[in-house]
Amino acid sequence: VQTGGFSFWLVFTWYKRCMPPEKIAKIEPRLLKGFRDYLPEDAVPLRTMIGKIEEVFRLFGFQPMETPALEYADLLVGKYGPEADKLMYRFVDHGARHVALRYDHTVPLARVMAMNQNMPLPFKRYVVAPVWRADKPQRGRLREFYQCDIDIVGSRETMADAECLAVGYHMLTRLGVKQFSLQINHRAILDGLVQAAGVAVNQVGGVFHAIDKFPKYGEESFVRDTAALGLTEKQTEQLLRLITLSGKPESILEKLSASLEENKKAMAGVRELGSIVKHAHAMGVPDKFLNVDLKIVRGLDYYTGMVAETIIPDLPLYGSVFSGGRYDTLIGLFTGRDVPAVGISLGLGRLFDALEELKLLPEQKTVTQVMIALFEDSDAAAAEKIATTLRKEGIATEVFLGNVSKLDRQLKNADKRGIPWVVWQGPEEKKAGVFAAKHLPSHKQQQLAIEDLPTEIKKLITK
Amino acid sequence: VQTGGFSFWLVFTWYKRCMPPEKIAKIEPRLLKGFRDYLPEDAVPLRTMIGKIEEVFRLFGFQPMETPALEYADLLVGKYGPEADKLMYRFVDHGARHVALRYDHTVPLARVMAMNQNMPLPFKRYVVAPVWRADKPQRGRLREFYQCDIDIVGSRETMADAECLAVGYHMLTRLGVKQFSLQINHRAILDGLVQAAGVAVNQVGGVFHAIDKFPKYGEESFVRDTAALGLTEKQTEQLLRLITLSGKPESILEKLSASLEENKKAMAGVRELGSIVKHAHAMGVPDKFLNVDLKIVRGLDYYTGMVAETIIPDLPLYGSVFSGGRYDTLIGLFTGRDVPAVGISLGLGRLFDALEELKLLPEQKTVTQVMIALFEDSDAAAAEKIATTLRKEGIATEVFLGNVSKLDRQLKNADKRGIPWVVWQGPEEKKAGVFAAKHLPSHKQQQLAIEDLPTEIKKLITK
Repeated sequence: VQTGGFSFWLVFTWYKRCMPPEKIAKIEPRLLKGFRDYLPEDAVPLRTMIGKIEEVFRLFGFQPMETPALEYADLLVGKYGPEADKLMYRFVDHGARHVALRYDHTVPLARVMAMNQNMPLPFKRYVVAPVWRADKPQRGRLREFYQCDIDIVGSRETMADAECLAVGYHMLTRLGVKQFSLQINHRAILDGLVQAAGVAVNQVGGVFHAIDKFPKYGEESFVRDTAALGLTEKQTEQLLRLITLSGKPESILEKLSASLEENKKAMAGVRELGSIVKHAHAMGVPDKFLNVDLKIVRGLDYYTGMVAETIIPDLPLYGSVFSGGRYDTLIGLFTGRDVPAVGISLGLGRLFDALEELKLLPEQKTVTQVMIALFEDSDAAAAEKIATTLRKEGIATEVFLGNVSKLDRQLKNADKRGIPWVVWQGPEEKKAGVFAAKHLPSHKQQQLAIEDLPTEIKKLITK
Repeated sequence: VQTGGFSFWLVFTWYKRCMPPEKIAKIEPRLLKGFRDYLPEDAVPLRTMIGKIEEVFRLFGFQPMETPALEYADLLVGKYGPEADKLMYRFVDHGARHVALRYDHTVPLARVMAMNQNMPLPFKRYVVAPVWRADKPQRGRLREFYQCDIDIVGSRETMADAECLAVGYHMLTRLGVKQFSLQINHRAILDGLVQAAGVAVNQVGGVFHAIDKFPKYGEESFVRDTAALGLTEKQTEQLLRLITLSGKPESILEKLSASLEENKKAMAGVRELGSIVKHAHAMGVPDKFLNVDLKIVRGLDYYTGMVAETIIPDLPLYGSVFSGGRYDTLIGLFTGRDVPAVGISLGLGRLFDALEELKLLPEQKTVTQVMIALFEDSDAAAAEKIATTLRKEGIATEVFLGNVSKLDRQLKNADKRGIPWVVWQGPEEKKAGVFAAKHLPSHKQQQLAIEDLPTEIKKLITK
């Protein structure tokens, strides 16, 4: 009991019980592959970024809604495709239930809609929370990452599709990204396009997959893929002529109307995209940020109408920053009746890395605005009282909590942590009844009267 | 391909493959026991509450820091006690690694400190994120719950202990809780107390456990427990006389000094608690919110110094709203050298329920401030332009996204969702070049000129 207390003794005993003796000295601290910590220098700008994103979501009237990290596995499995099922974190819990960590926010949303069928529609929600995928870790793609989603449930209107694009536009603009492009397409156009080329029903999946691969692997790979599927050269040529179309909506939609005017399905898609573009303009999305690209398929998943991706031309390696589309049948799997929906999803880690490369992250490394340095232990109570006054004015204030040491060491500590202002009262200042205030980035120092401290500090900080 | 599109067909095929045929019609949506959704009516006040809590954390200079949900299991197991190990969600991942969902934020913090030993100390961090425990679900205690932690690493000063108490006080005050009590104790006092009563080393664990149970099961149970441990009646009496002390710090610490003045360890604890109380006062914690209670042990875990709990007298069934203490040896298990630390932890779900019972949650059910109702589909673009203008003024605005229907239905929809203002331009208003604006809670309606809409709406909202 004398050597460190009861709790240490207990921890130590348990610890000995579960580790081989040669390892007792120290636990080897390590992080799982594909996972990361956000230390304050990253967490501070991350939280600022999330704040701005949520602000835009809220301005458009999207409501926060949160679902658990764990779900019954059978609710998630089979909704994303066989590849995804392999990447899902699944296990059996203490009650012998088969559970899985959430893989995205869309399937949990469908479950919520089914369990709350009296919710007034249209329903607009947002969520900013991690999802887990046991993927091969790669640049900007971890096994745990924040996914930000907005979804509009219960509206078939093209206004709803447009709103998702508009939120994406205003969000990236709010974050300071100047150049980016919203690339849109429509599943009905893709359906019509393969129909018009006479692709057989059992070949459709393969052709969509080949189109999906096109932007990454190029035309030659596409031609090889379609040949392997048994398409004729003529069919492949016809597909190529259309899927390589990309550019301003007006011109592309016009070309499509000319080529596919016989195909009802495709024409419905063309009209919808046209209407979506018009509404997006009304919501403040400038023309130059919108493009139609017929190679956008959005993988093998649940989309049924518009599909969208975003690229930042300065960062071609990052792929789509946010993506989404309309999925009118997914929720029906849970509710038993069709409930239309459209949404976009943003990988926060990837966007964070992108903003870092574009030098658009705030440089602020700490939330603290002022640190009060101490000359003597006996100054602590007085400093705490002043800190309390500053906090009342909304100024984030620390009192130095280490061993009271030379002022220089305290200034260095504050500087290392990125705190902009340090104030203190040394023997001289005490005599004069003032405080010294130093702005560390500029090395400028000044004196402030005690009674003016809160208002003056506030002025200095907001300057 | 004709019936619903490629993606639906694919989803349907996978789905058929993994579910028995009689279940295909509809997936039974269900939530795991002990988990909950936060629908907007709860998520909106939850997020407001989190915002206020984070504001207080930041005012005291605590930095956000985030760690993964999953950790190597051996890092977590054995740190909380054998009971906790049983409640940990553990499984084997795709790479055959033994992993566990985080059980709290303290052990991950210790890992971070060990992996980043160049971090300038003292280090103050906060985190608001879920933890998982396969506990028996009970009132205010779910299997997934948000835990808010603050920790100060690298400071042995009693100022640091006091700061944790002060943050707790200011946080509850900021949330509107008027009556609560910070109950503090010190492990060294407990150590000294059992020492002074002549409790044998192998009985200490049992006695601490008996003290821990006292507030819940009462004196009789305590007497039974100590008898079972082999303590004499005299020993039990001596313990009882001291552990039942609780009240204002000055008076309790004085009594302890008189009873335990021979015991160095206990006296060190008494002096530390006295100093903590003094600093807490300097940080704005009024005297009446602080009490010393010698029955506070904080379970069988890693605390070594001050321990603290909080009770809200109006809600005795809720137990401690936030708790914590000093743990100077835990981080050393990871770093191999002693790193002192102190922190408090708050269960958000429990506090949320508590605030709800105290009627302290904001009644706002939605983030939306204004909905623009539509009379005709062709009004949509004009409405979207107005919405864009309102959003630029910081007003959270929706354009009605359902089928354009009677105004009454749209007003009802907005009312059901808790949106305070609805504006529209019907045929009459169009003629007059004005907008109608209705405040749903008061049923008051007025007319606004189009050009004044943003400024007038802003005035109406902030009124």
